[in-house]
Amino acid sequence: MMKDNGTSDRLTWSCPVSVDQYPHVVMAHGGGGKLMNQLIDGMFARAFANPLTERRHDGAFAELPKNRIAFTTDSFVVRPLFFPGGNIGDLAVNGTVNDLAMCGARPLYLSAGFIIEEGLPMESLWKIVLSMKNSADAANVHIVTGDTKVVDRGKGDGLFINTSGIGVIEKEIYPQAIQPGDSIIINSDIARHGMAIMAVREGLTFESEIESDTASLSEMVMNMIENGIDVHCLRDATRGGLASVLVELSQSGGYEFHIEESAIPVRDDVAAACEILGLDPLYVANEGCMAAFIAGKDAEKALQIMKNFPTGQNASVIGRVMDSREARVIMKSRIGTRRIIDMISGEQLPRIC
Amino acid sequence: MMKDNGTSDRLTWSCPVSVDQYPHVVMAHGGGGKLMNQLIDGMFARAFANPLTERRHDGAFAELPKNRIAFTTDSFVVRPLFFPGGNIGDLAVNGTVNDLAMCGARPLYLSAGFIIEEGLPMESLWKIVLSMKNSADAANVHIVTGDTKVVDRGKGDGLFINTSGIGVIEKEIYPQAIQPGDSIIINSDIARHGMAIMAVREGLTFESEIESDTASLSEMVMNMIENGIDVHCLRDATRGGLASVLVELSQSGGYEFHIEESAIPVRDDVAAACEILGLDPLYVANEGCMAAFIAGKDAEKALQIMKNFPTGQNASVIGRVMDSREARVIMKSRIGTRRIIDMISGEQLPRIC
Repeated sequence: MMKDNGTSDRLTWSCPVSVDQYPHVVMAHGGGGKLMNQLIDGMFARAFANPLTERRHDGAFAELPKNRIAFTTDSFVVRPLFFPGGNIGDLAVNGTVNDLAMCGARPLYLSAGFIIEEGLPMESLWKIVLSMKNSADAANVHIVTGDTKVVDRGKGDGLFINTSGIGVIEKEIYPQAIQPGDSIIINSDIARHGMAIMAVREGLTFESEIESDTASLSEMVMNMIENGIDVHCLRDATRGGLASVLVELSQSGGYEFHIEESAIPVRDDVAAACEILGLDPLYVANEGCMAAFIAGKDAEKALQIMKNFPTGQNASVIGRVMDSREARVIMKSRIGTRRIIDMISGEQLPRIC
Repeated sequence: MMKDNGTSDRLTWSCPVSVDQYPHVVMAHGGGGKLMNQLIDGMFARAFANPLTERRHDGAFAELPKNRIAFTTDSFVVRPLFFPGGNIGDLAVNGTVNDLAMCGARPLYLSAGFIIEEGLPMESLWKIVLSMKNSADAANVHIVTGDTKVVDRGKGDGLFINTSGIGVIEKEIYPQAIQPGDSIIINSDIARHGMAIMAVREGLTFESEIESDTASLSEMVMNMIENGIDVHCLRDATRGGLASVLVELSQSGGYEFHIEESAIPVRDDVAAACEILGLDPLYVANEGCMAAFIAGKDAEKALQIMKNFPTGQNASVIGRVMDSREARVIMKSRIGTRRIIDMISGEQLPRIC
């Protein structure tokens, strides 16, 4: 399980698949023949090399340290493929790592399924694959099995990536474990990922560039569990943003939540960008922000642990779970008014992950 | 883990998502809001309901009966979505189930990631989801976790599905276990899947319709293992067909294979269709056909077990593994000449799975 930093260094080299001959991905790279094997050997097997991928078979073999697992899947269709702070590759690894962490599972193994549109520059694919390798290393997971498909020009959009993941349960965490009196804590300011994507799409420029918050939350979560924090539920606030996640969890958990708007950190430039585009940051996607439901007695300690991690610098208690069985989210605004937070019907921002 | 046949019957009902209001999938069905939750509750959670999906969380929790697992992933981009003998849904379940079986693993849990193009008829999606449920029941696996993304019209092609799977190892099977003296057995006639797809695409009609051979091979494989057959390697002959799989395995395993063309069953109508389109059936994809490398002493018994299953009726010993360390595949033709079988560079048939 040790990372081979030597390998990592070598991988900053330029694209290992012959770009002279194939500057772009062609249909045959997904055809099951020689070209596909060259792509797999030259790029995927090289970047993701680990002891479990050596046998070149239909799947990977692995020995799990425990029998109780979490299993999750996520497809990534973000547009554009590259954006400030990351690319579809980082997102695909961190997204699935975080889904496992939200289950209280220690992420171990990921799969990677690529659906490539004919014509994708080979150099772009290599950059994305390198990002996946680096994110996987950072989260201490291995990408152990994969699949490559190529679709005709105009039948895809550059690249879609599916990552599925397996982790072993350290503490089972789920919405029905939410209890009255739980503190609701978020680890960071919100809306950075969605606004980073929108700024690129809309051609907006700000004094400081807004970067995606894409990051693994796994180490922080494992640290909380190892330190005995009574974590009841965790959920990363991706599509639909923090508001949608809170509404979903109040419904799944069956309790009323009270939230203080003034306690939710939003960076000034992010808030300004939201205002320009007429978006409510509460509904804008994050890729490194979670809502944590922590037994009230442990809230302060949880906050301190979060602040020990780069992704937890802006951790903040934003509200609490009430006794009421009325499953709704009520927010007290900065000026003291109260309103019920609703789930949006569709989406403000298509294809942000 | 018991199947609820009552549920299965109810699922022949018409599409549970309001088709009046949303006859087609819209962007908002992938947006993380109410519409996405309606789609998940109304369709996916309903079709795939099982004890592990009740918690509506970021992943599924599962208890594995053994610690040694196989893990695999596959994305499906077949065109058209519906074809004689099946659809992308059957294919997505059987494909991943078979990849696990080829590792000697008993398939247990699948994930399902949907990338839907805006405008896909809701009824089509429901038919596909039902097929997935039925194929999963037939293979005795549960679809326990999923993901839904929607991409803009013209940025996808109806539907892409990723399935990843976890199985527990019953006997570790891989290319490097191939031994000289192994019999090479295939369980069925070849080239049906690829030709079923091509016939639709090219608008060919034959006296009898050629149907895809899509099927789970898992039960047959588990039965061979349970009966103590000394299985050295298994590989399903999908993209690139039987020829590509044999060449790949001779290279991974490091031995020379001798194959008899006359022993490889090809149905007359399939052979005729191949001839019309100028295709070699050896390179045409299958979705229910595998090459099995069995210790010579067990070949006859393996053949008998295969013939007990619907997918093994045409099982046939097609060749053997030689002592020679020259990694190549030599085929004796019907008229007695010998030739080296090569891997094709690209593909004859794009997007057959």
